[in-house]
Amino acid sequence: MKTGLESEGRTVKVAVDAMGGDNAPEEIVKGVELARDKYPDMSFQLFGPEERIKALLQNDDRITVVPANSVIAMEDEPVRAVRTKKDSSIVLAATAVKEHTADAFFSAGNTGAVLAAGLFIIGRVKGIDRPGLTTTLPVVTGDATGSFTMLDVGANADYKVTNIEQFAVLGNFYGQTVMGIKTPRVGLLNNGTESDKGDKAHREAYQRLSEMTNINFIGNVESRELLNGAADVVVTDGFTGNATLKAIEGTALSMMTLIRSKIMASTKAKMGYVLSRNAFHQVGQVMDYSKHGGAVLLGLKGAVIKTHGSSKAETVRNTMGQIHQIIASGLIQQTIDYFDTSADQTNVDNTEK
Amino acid sequence: MKTGLESEGRTVKVAVDAMGGDNAPEEIVKGVELARDKYPDMSFQLFGPEERIKALLQNDDRITVVPANSVIAMEDEPVRAVRTKKDSSIVLAATAVKEHTADAFFSAGNTGAVLAAGLFIIGRVKGIDRPGLTTTLPVVTGDATGSFTMLDVGANADYKVTNIEQFAVLGNFYGQTVMGIKTPRVGLLNNGTESDKGDKAHREAYQRLSEMTNINFIGNVESRELLNGAADVVVTDGFTGNATLKAIEGTALSMMTLIRSKIMASTKAKMGYVLSRNAFHQVGQVMDYSKHGGAVLLGLKGAVIKTHGSSKAETVRNTMGQIHQIIASGLIQQTIDYFDTSADQTNVDNTEK
Repeated sequence: MKTGLESEGRTVKVAVDAMGGDNAPEEIVKGVELARDKYPDMSFQLFGPEERIKALLQNDDRITVVPANSVIAMEDEPVRAVRTKKDSSIVLAATAVKEHTADAFFSAGNTGAVLAAGLFIIGRVKGIDRPGLTTTLPVVTGDATGSFTMLDVGANADYKVTNIEQFAVLGNFYGQTVMGIKTPRVGLLNNGTESDKGDKAHREAYQRLSEMTNINFIGNVESRELLNGAADVVVTDGFTGNATLKAIEGTALSMMTLIRSKIMASTKAKMGYVLSRNAFHQVGQVMDYSKHGGAVLLGLKGAVIKTHGSSKAETVRNTMGQIHQIIASGLIQQTIDYFDTSADQTNVDNTEK
Repeated sequence: MKTGLESEGRTVKVAVDAMGGDNAPEEIVKGVELARDKYPDMSFQLFGPEERIKALLQNDDRITVVPANSVIAMEDEPVRAVRTKKDSSIVLAATAVKEHTADAFFSAGNTGAVLAAGLFIIGRVKGIDRPGLTTTLPVVTGDATGSFTMLDVGANADYKVTNIEQFAVLGNFYGQTVMGIKTPRVGLLNNGTESDKGDKAHREAYQRLSEMTNINFIGNVESRELLNGAADVVVTDGFTGNATLKAIEGTALSMMTLIRSKIMASTKAKMGYVLSRNAFHQVGQVMDYSKHGGAVLLGLKGAVIKTHGSSKAETVRNTMGQIHQIIASGLIQQTIDYFDTSADQTNVDNTEK
C-alpha cells in the first residue's frame, strides 16, 4: 500500500466529485483539465452524470468519467446523505479511494458530507481517534512569502486532549512532507504564551506536547500572532480552530471591503487607488487562501481534500498540485506506519477533558 | 446604593490606577485631565506616588491624588501580586470602589491583576458565578458607523453553560444602557448558524438561550460574520472569545502592515497612497478599537474598566466617557437588582460542561 511515487513510477490518481461546489460541474472539469495539462504524472476520475460531464471535456487524456447519478446538495444533512445517496458523486469518489482505484478524493461540495464520507467510507488510520481538518494560511510579514498550517479547524467540535497530541504528529508530518520544512515549529493555540494559560484541557495539552520527543514543540501561540508566523504548524481543538480560522477570514474580507468603500467615497482617493492598484492586487493575492490549496482531512487511510464551495478552475488546479505533493511525498503511508505501530505499543489515553 | 446620576445630581467618581500601562503615569494623568475638562460631572482619584503624580498635574480641579507606594508590574503573577502588594495603585483603587468612595475602577495595567482585584476586592454580584470581560468592536460595513459587544473575551478560560446564560443577561443590559439599543440582538458565537452546531456545551447553551424570555436571542453567529454586524451582543465562553478577539485584532493589524509594505515597495503606488491617504486614515480610525473605550468586567458590584497597556491620553479620555455612560445609566445597579432577585428565586445550575 506504499504510495510514494518515486518508488513506483506510476501516476497520482484522483477521484474527483465533479458535482460539488457552487460552480460545478463546469469549473471543476475545467480545473481538472488545467491540472492534467500541468502534471503529466496525474490521472483523474470524474464522478458525475456521464453525458453532462463528457460534454464539458475538451480532451479526455488521463481523464475517465465515472457515472454518478445523484448529488449531495450543500443543504443536505451530511451523515444521512452519505448513508442514503449511495450513487452520489461524493460517495462513489470516496469509495474509489477505499478500493484503491484512486489515491485521493477531491471535492468542493458539502463539507460535512465530505468529512463523513472520508470517515465512514475511507476510514481512520488505526491508532487515530479523530481525523483533523488541516488548512494552510499565509504568513503576512513584510515580504509575505510564507505560510503556516493549522489543525483541527472544524472536523470535530468535541475533543479530548489525546486528539490534540495526534494533531501535533499529523501536522508535523504535513509540515515536513507537503510544506517541505525539515523541523516544523509546532505551537499550541492558546490564550497566552505562558505554560499555565488556557482552560484545563489546554493546560494538559501543553504538558503532553512538552513531553513529546518526536516534534519540535515551541509552546503556546496566540491567535493574534498566527499571521506573523508564530509557528509553522498550529494545533488546536476543532471548536477554537474553526472560530479562529473564520475570524481571520472574516476580518481580512471586511478590511478589504472597508478600504475599498473608503477609497471609492472620495475622487482624490480614487485617483490614488488607480496608481496603487497593483499593490492592492498583491494584497489580495497574499490573502487569497485558495492559492494555498484546499483543506486536508488528516488521519484517514487515504487523502481527502476539500476546497471552498466557491472554487473556480484555477483553485481546482492549485489544489491538484497540493494533492500531487501529498501523494508523492508518501504522507499518508507515513501516518499509517507511525500510528499503526504506536497503536500496538501504547494505551491510548481517552480521558475526557 | 443606587448609582443612577440623574436621581442624585452628583458626580461620577473614578478611582484611577495612575501607574498602569506602558505610558504611565504621564499619559494617564494627561488623559484624566482631558476627561475632567470634557465631563463637568466627573471627579477622579489618582492612585500613585504622590509627589510624582502631583508634579504632572496641570490643574487639580476635581482631581485628588491618593498615595500608593508600590506598583503591580506587567510581568507580576496577578493573584499573588494583588494579595501581597496591599499599597499598590491597583489594590488601593479597587478598594476605593469596594468602600464606595468611588463608582468605578480604571486601569491600563496588568490585566490579570485588574481582573483579580475586581473579583477579590470589589466582588461578584450575588447570583453571578463568574464575571465576563466585555469588549466593544467596530462593525465594518460600507459606512462603518456601528459596533458590537462581545463577552466573555478572557476573564475565564474554564466555564460552565450557566456562565454563558449570565453573560447573555449582562451583555443585554450593557447593550441597552451603554450602547443605547432598546432590544439588542443577542447571538451565541458558534461553529455554524444551525441549532445543532458546536460542541456539547455550545449546543446546550443554544437550547438554554432559546428558552430565555428576557433577551432577544437571534441564534448562533459565526466569527466570520461578527464585523458584518451579525449581532449587537455576542456571547461566548472566555476561551473561544479570547481566541476570536485576538484573531480579529491580529488580522486587522497584519492587513494594515501588508498594505503599507506593498505600497511602499513601488514608487507609483506610493504616489497613489499620498492621494488616498485620508481614506487609509479613516480605515485606521474605524479599526482602532480604543475609540470604543476599554474592556469592562461585567458582573461585579462596581464598575471595573481595563484599557490596553499601550493607551495614550486620548484613549484614557474616551474610556472615561464610557465609564460616565456606565455609571450614569445605572448599569451596575440594574445587574445587582436582577441577579440578586434571581439568586433568591432559582437554583443555579452548576452542571459541568
